[in-house]
Amino acid sequence: MGTATLLRIDRDRLQQRLDGLASIGRLPDGGVWRIAYSDEDLAARQWVTAAMQAAGMTVTIDAAGNLIGRYAGTEDLPALATGSHIDTVPTGGRYDGALGVLAGIEAVATLHEAGRRLRHAIEVIAFTDEEGEMIGSKAMAGTAKLSDPEHFRRLNGEAIQPCLERVGGNWAALPSARRTDQDIAAYLELHVEQGGVLESEQCQIGVVQGIVSLQRFQVAITGRPNHAGTTPMHLRQDALYAASLLVAAVHDVAVDIPGDQVATVGLLTVAPNAANIVPGRVELTIDMRDLSLETLGAMVEGLKQRIVAIQASTGTQIELRPQHFVEPTLASPAVQGAIAAVCDDLNLTHYSMPSRAIHDAQEIGRFTQMGMIFVPSQAGVSHAEDEYTSPEQCGQGADVLLHTLMALDEQLDSATHD
Amino acid sequence: MGTATLLRIDRDRLQQRLDGLASIGRLPDGGVWRIAYSDEDLAARQWVTAAMQAAGMTVTIDAAGNLIGRYAGTEDLPALATGSHIDTVPTGGRYDGALGVLAGIEAVATLHEAGRRLRHAIEVIAFTDEEGEMIGSKAMAGTAKLSDPEHFRRLNGEAIQPCLERVGGNWAALPSARRTDQDIAAYLELHVEQGGVLESEQCQIGVVQGIVSLQRFQVAITGRPNHAGTTPMHLRQDALYAASLLVAAVHDVAVDIPGDQVATVGLLTVAPNAANIVPGRVELTIDMRDLSLETLGAMVEGLKQRIVAIQASTGTQIELRPQHFVEPTLASPAVQGAIAAVCDDLNLTHYSMPSRAIHDAQEIGRFTQMGMIFVPSQAGVSHAEDEYTSPEQCGQGADVLLHTLMALDEQLDSATHD
Repeated sequence: MGTATLLRIDRDRLQQRLDGLASIGRLPDGGVWRIAYSDEDLAARQWVTAAMQAAGMTVTIDAAGNLIGRYAGTEDLPALATGSHIDTVPTGGRYDGALGVLAGIEAVATLHEAGRRLRHAIEVIAFTDEEGEMIGSKAMAGTAKLSDPEHFRRLNGEAIQPCLERVGGNWAALPSARRTDQDIAAYLELHVEQGGVLESEQCQIGVVQGIVSLQRFQVAITGRPNHAGTTPMHLRQDALYAASLLVAAVHDVAVDIPGDQVATVGLLTVAPNAANIVPGRVELTIDMRDLSLETLGAMVEGLKQRIVAIQASTGTQIELRPQHFVEPTLASPAVQGAIAAVCDDLNLTHYSMPSRAIHDAQEIGRFTQMGMIFVPSQAGVSHAEDEYTSPEQCGQGADVLLHTLMALDEQLDSATHD
Repeated sequence: MGTATLLRIDRDRLQQRLDGLASIGRLPDGGVWRIAYSDEDLAARQWVTAAMQAAGMTVTIDAAGNLIGRYAGTEDLPALATGSHIDTVPTGGRYDGALGVLAGIEAVATLHEAGRRLRHAIEVIAFTDEEGEMIGSKAMAGTAKLSDPEHFRRLNGEAIQPCLERVGGNWAALPSARRTDQDIAAYLELHVEQGGVLESEQCQIGVVQGIVSLQRFQVAITGRPNHAGTTPMHLRQDALYAASLLVAAVHDVAVDIPGDQVATVGLLTVAPNAANIVPGRVELTIDMRDLSLETLGAMVEGLKQRIVAIQASTGTQIELRPQHFVEPTLASPAVQGAIAAVCDDLNLTHYSMPSRAIHDAQEIGRFTQMGMIFVPSQAGVSHAEDEYTSPEQCGQGADVLLHTLMALDEQLDSATHD
């Protein structure tokens, strides 16, 4: 198939859709405040519903509040799903989540206007509360703990059931939101990269290899608070000095072994935190991410060895407590191959890379084959008002989404019948 | 003179005095809350006034609110002054400050009961607000900035004049509180060490060489906040990683050169301080203390060199801003010699050491010859409820104070007439 005959999405209209959605919850400096379940989220859901319907889709809402637009196929086959989320962090950007939902709608609209249907139905899904507890994708994957509604309580204290009711969901019926690979044959998500890899590699499209495992630790360092003047250096048990050696060790275990794993101390608090007192206690978090559990294990092992040495040299106690662990989700090699082939067809450069951010694809990929398409984030910025991906880059990503759906429509059908 | 004939202070009564003063502002766990100018401070001042009067002293209050008990001498000579403070930090101990004032009263009471007067008058001074802005000793030394009442505003927002009025002082008359070496021939202060040096050296008395210079810096480290997952290690500008290298450098510049200088990062705050965000900004304080300005200069120089390297390796900007500088105050060699000789007479082991904490002696030593006597602090703890110095150690310190006053009474008179 030659590029001359390929369908293309309408880039201008995609931009209009991005502008339109960004106007709901717009902040003075250009960012977006659209927390899940808020009035802004509700208004955005109505806006998206109308856009889905205008693109020829039937819209339903499942028990988790997921907004599902379905564009019927010509055969009785499981659906090809795409989508992302429309909720944001408190000062979010215009592209994170929104691009995946709107490009999905635009892909269907392009088929619809060309009078084309695929053999598989296409579902475009706006998942509930991706920036919070991810109840939407977790309910669909069956990974939401139904026994624990408290886990899904909002930070402002709101219980989950009133939140779900507000968006058309229902906690008691949550199991009904569950899907399997019998009714979703594959899931594709277009998303902004939220990092600077594509920009620094000068590539147009990221072909995601999988969503990394995340291992987070809570660390408490106990020393002895003491007078910063009268306590000689060799008699100190300085919790912050120990913490500084640990922060450096966290950095070192990430960069000292081959690979592009990451490790971060993002949160650190000192007590008593006064200029004239040797710190007696420090609490901090360690966040480590990689696609390979083996690499993560090696990092943790290296860190534990260094902690023994730091305790000994500083006279402090360091407690390393696992806080959070997310299994990696690998992208389907077939879907990765389809994305890469489409990029080649469209003359777009592409780069294979893991996603080190969490996405709905992480949960959906637990029950069906998954792939993600990344487009560059300017300066790697996301979750901020100056998050930016150019109209051309958004359009390229949407074209890749459309044509990968079409390619999977052909390939998966054949595979099903093998 | 043989030890058999030496006067001794009454150790039981000194303990009763310590207990009595500690009951004013007593906290449930045994500590003391007696912030300057509080009702507790006022009650303690009345209590101390009565004790001074009972010991044969005439009590006056100067414009800075300093409580001054005077035990007349037999000759028209400048006074020998001693004392400390009776205000505490918010959860203070029973000994910091209180011991110096009460031992001074006890020394005078011992002379008074023995029917003895020295040739010099003895003044026992309870200085105003040592734990705060030290207006008492600064006014006496003439180092209080009279043009800047705002500098003396309390942390709770209270202006200085109503505070001073409450304790019998008067901001407008502050210059009248100024003293010189024409009316105070020497100043001696007994204080708990507030560190663990005497305990670790197994010595009974510390002979203070001087009060160290304090140099404090405010440091701001600016990096770039970014997603802890999606930002590769080599593209980060991690302000906390840079801070950890700096905290380690502060430690290293103190221990890498000979001497017992100290350097501390006691306060450190991270922004945005979230587990999943690479820190974009860190603010911290650096507190360095030593008797030698040359040593302090070498530490600062070493630190500046390391900061250049840390900035380069982390891609951050580090701003080092001087915040506070206190000149060192050296103790008079003659007074140090008198203290050491008294210790020898009393068969007490002694150890020469700097004071790395701030004391009223720091200001008084700017206009007259000064000496300080330290007694051990159990486990080096101070400014805390479990601050402890044994009755025996308190008594030893008070005996050294009494006999050093008597020795100076002989020595200084001769010197004056040389």
